[in-house]
Amino acid sequence: MRPTRNGAQLITNTQGSAPGTGPQPADFTDVRATNLAVVLRFVRENAPCSRADIAASTGLNKATVSSLVADLIDRRLLRETGLTENRVGRPATMLVLDGSPYAAVGIEVNVDYLTAVAVDLKGEALLSWRRAFPGGSASSGQAVAGIAGVARRVVTRMTKEARQVLGLTVAVPGLVDLGGSVRLAPNMGWRDVDLAGDLAKALRDPGFPVLVDNDANLGALAELRFGPHGGVRDLVYLTGEIGVGAGIVLDGRLRRGGAGFSGEIGHIEIVPGGPPCHCGRRGCLEVVAGLGALLDRTVPGGVSPAELEPEIDEVVQRAEAGDPVVLDLLDTLAGNLGRGVGIVANLLNPEVVVLGGYYVKLAPWILARAEQEMLGRALAPGGGGCRLVVSGLGYGAAALGAAARVLDSVDSGRLPAPA
Amino acid sequence: MRPTRNGAQLITNTQGSAPGTGPQPADFTDVRATNLAVVLRFVRENAPCSRADIAASTGLNKATVSSLVADLIDRRLLRETGLTENRVGRPATMLVLDGSPYAAVGIEVNVDYLTAVAVDLKGEALLSWRRAFPGGSASSGQAVAGIAGVARRVVTRMTKEARQVLGLTVAVPGLVDLGGSVRLAPNMGWRDVDLAGDLAKALRDPGFPVLVDNDANLGALAELRFGPHGGVRDLVYLTGEIGVGAGIVLDGRLRRGGAGFSGEIGHIEIVPGGPPCHCGRRGCLEVVAGLGALLDRTVPGGVSPAELEPEIDEVVQRAEAGDPVVLDLLDTLAGNLGRGVGIVANLLNPEVVVLGGYYVKLAPWILARAEQEMLGRALAPGGGGCRLVVSGLGYGAAALGAAARVLDSVDSGRLPAPA
Repeated sequence: MRPTRNGAQLITNTQGSAPGTGPQPADFTDVRATNLAVVLRFVRENAPCSRADIAASTGLNKATVSSLVADLIDRRLLRETGLTENRVGRPATMLVLDGSPYAAVGIEVNVDYLTAVAVDLKGEALLSWRRAFPGGSASSGQAVAGIAGVARRVVTRMTKEARQVLGLTVAVPGLVDLGGSVRLAPNMGWRDVDLAGDLAKALRDPGFPVLVDNDANLGALAELRFGPHGGVRDLVYLTGEIGVGAGIVLDGRLRRGGAGFSGEIGHIEIVPGGPPCHCGRRGCLEVVAGLGALLDRTVPGGVSPAELEPEIDEVVQRAEAGDPVVLDLLDTLAGNLGRGVGIVANLLNPEVVVLGGYYVKLAPWILARAEQEMLGRALAPGGGGCRLVVSGLGYGAAALGAAARVLDSVDSGRLPAPA
Repeated sequence: MRPTRNGAQLITNTQGSAPGTGPQPADFTDVRATNLAVVLRFVRENAPCSRADIAASTGLNKATVSSLVADLIDRRLLRETGLTENRVGRPATMLVLDGSPYAAVGIEVNVDYLTAVAVDLKGEALLSWRRAFPGGSASSGQAVAGIAGVARRVVTRMTKEARQVLGLTVAVPGLVDLGGSVRLAPNMGWRDVDLAGDLAKALRDPGFPVLVDNDANLGALAELRFGPHGGVRDLVYLTGEIGVGAGIVLDGRLRRGGAGFSGEIGHIEIVPGGPPCHCGRRGCLEVVAGLGALLDRTVPGGVSPAELEPEIDEVVQRAEAGDPVVLDLLDTLAGNLGRGVGIVANLLNPEVVVLGGYYVKLAPWILARAEQEMLGRALAPGGGGCRLVVSGLGYGAAALGAAARVLDSVDSGRLPAPA
């Protein structure tokens, strides 16, 4: 709250009353970066808006706002529109985010595919690629090569469009520690892979940050930023792949747990003594409600990781045709999924649980049954208000969330340098 | 951040980068209350300290701090000590919290007892009562009368000591909505009881706020404020009564979920087709790992709610004597409890899970086994760092947390009026 030499003001976090959280003054040297981020986020949410609007709503004084806006324009994060707003007094020049010079890149690697997404600063899609990739049988070295290859192609494309890449985040179905190492990814067969480090090496110091995060966490971030859940503060996103993971948002924020390993719903025992799981246990949610539970029964001889998508399409066709074997399998899967969602409803009382991945295609046959099971298991009447819905973000949710994490980083003050 | 007429400064919450969280200016009229709370919390954590210390650390200017401190001294929340600190320049008068004029009261009602606690502003114990009370068989009306009776006695005692009661919170083992109504408390046999309203009526407008909250949530608040978990930001507290509930702290805050119903771990199915639960389901955690699971087997003819405590003492004696039947029951209970803790470890990745209530007495026979079970079930190696520990707060944890919630309310700016 003390004024600084450059006229910015110190912003102090005073949210709430938990013990041990007194005033937490921001680091003095970060004040300007923090205030730049405040202005950037304000424009993100309120564009088009004027400098006076920013000053009125943030409490920063007008001279400070002018200086911050000039800096953000220099960095090509904001631009002035031709528009002006006529009020009493002088017309005000309106500001918007500048979408053109930057790209945020997200890549998801999974058991059977690689997905890449790039968005501009506004979050608008620039490209969306998906290709089959046998992540479940590739070594981590092969996966690094595959991800790096896709990343290079995305960067080349962005560079051709005269865009600077702000960062790359890679989504992985497994335990990712807070430093970007994959501690364990059972369905990929990985253990202790320094994926962020290996990728940065493979990309030869790319000049932008390379992060790695859990796919379900990133799916949840994508739902928060791009989903239709306005006002929802408590949301759980479930991936629906061979593995099943949860991204947990409570009070508006992703909750990662002490070591970053929250959301491992896929390895909660649902059927004691049930089928064996890649993790070494039995009856885990993902072996009774993941895609493997379905395809192991519908595909004679077992599924090749590269063929999941056509196999799912065949399941959908058989379900549409009323095949009783498939309908029965889907009903069982839905019941088991509902047991998992019931655990989430009892423990976390979210407003929404979002089903992603292949669950989206299967929704017509699993959603109602899973919700019914959840409602029957939740102690709170009506599931405590919990709704089970299908993601509208499609297969790209984790990659989109990976790009969103790059934007989150910019929004919180890690800004590109001025031109 | 804009200066106000009285010289206070607007504090803006800018924590973090989640989408949808731009700058959130505090309500203009709340600025002074917010800043009073900032100073109060700073002194709570740093006493003895000087006005200059407060100004230096909070960023509030010195004149503002002097005005705020004068106000807090008027309200008898702070006092000056005789101590001074010699620095370069003038000696500074040191400030501390004033513990003497106030009391925060917490009462817990449960299946078999009523507990009452009062603490001063510093959190130091003024009184701790416990008596048998057949909450499990009493009507909600009888419970209101019982709680009100205890509350009146506590208030009388505090008044005799010339203390003003800042507030009363009542802990209940059940679903409590955000308005203080008990929606469902299976072990008490309550449904839709407006406990906060009924109590305020029974106490005839007591002149202090009466709140109602879930016992596990309050146990978690007690651990945060009074427990030995310095620096822990992700903690789950488990009640160990006839019922079992969880209070969930993530990133330093209690997470209540969308409707306030989080933490219902007691009604997660642990043993499919297991024994019937009061909630109407079967095999819930609390029927296989709650106290009833034990006492139904050790007490011929079943347990009367008023006799739980002596029965638990007898279990402890039999365990100490090496009674194989009791040891076997405790081992089974511990295994089931560990399955529940494993769910928490997989889903939330807490740093600590704290066992409260009667689990404290049973710890020598259940802690190691439950931890082993949890470790075997967590996907993350070493349980993701999760430790299973026993509460040091004893039976009074929920009541203590109820009193802590009153202090939290003061710390966040709901201050008593000046004398």
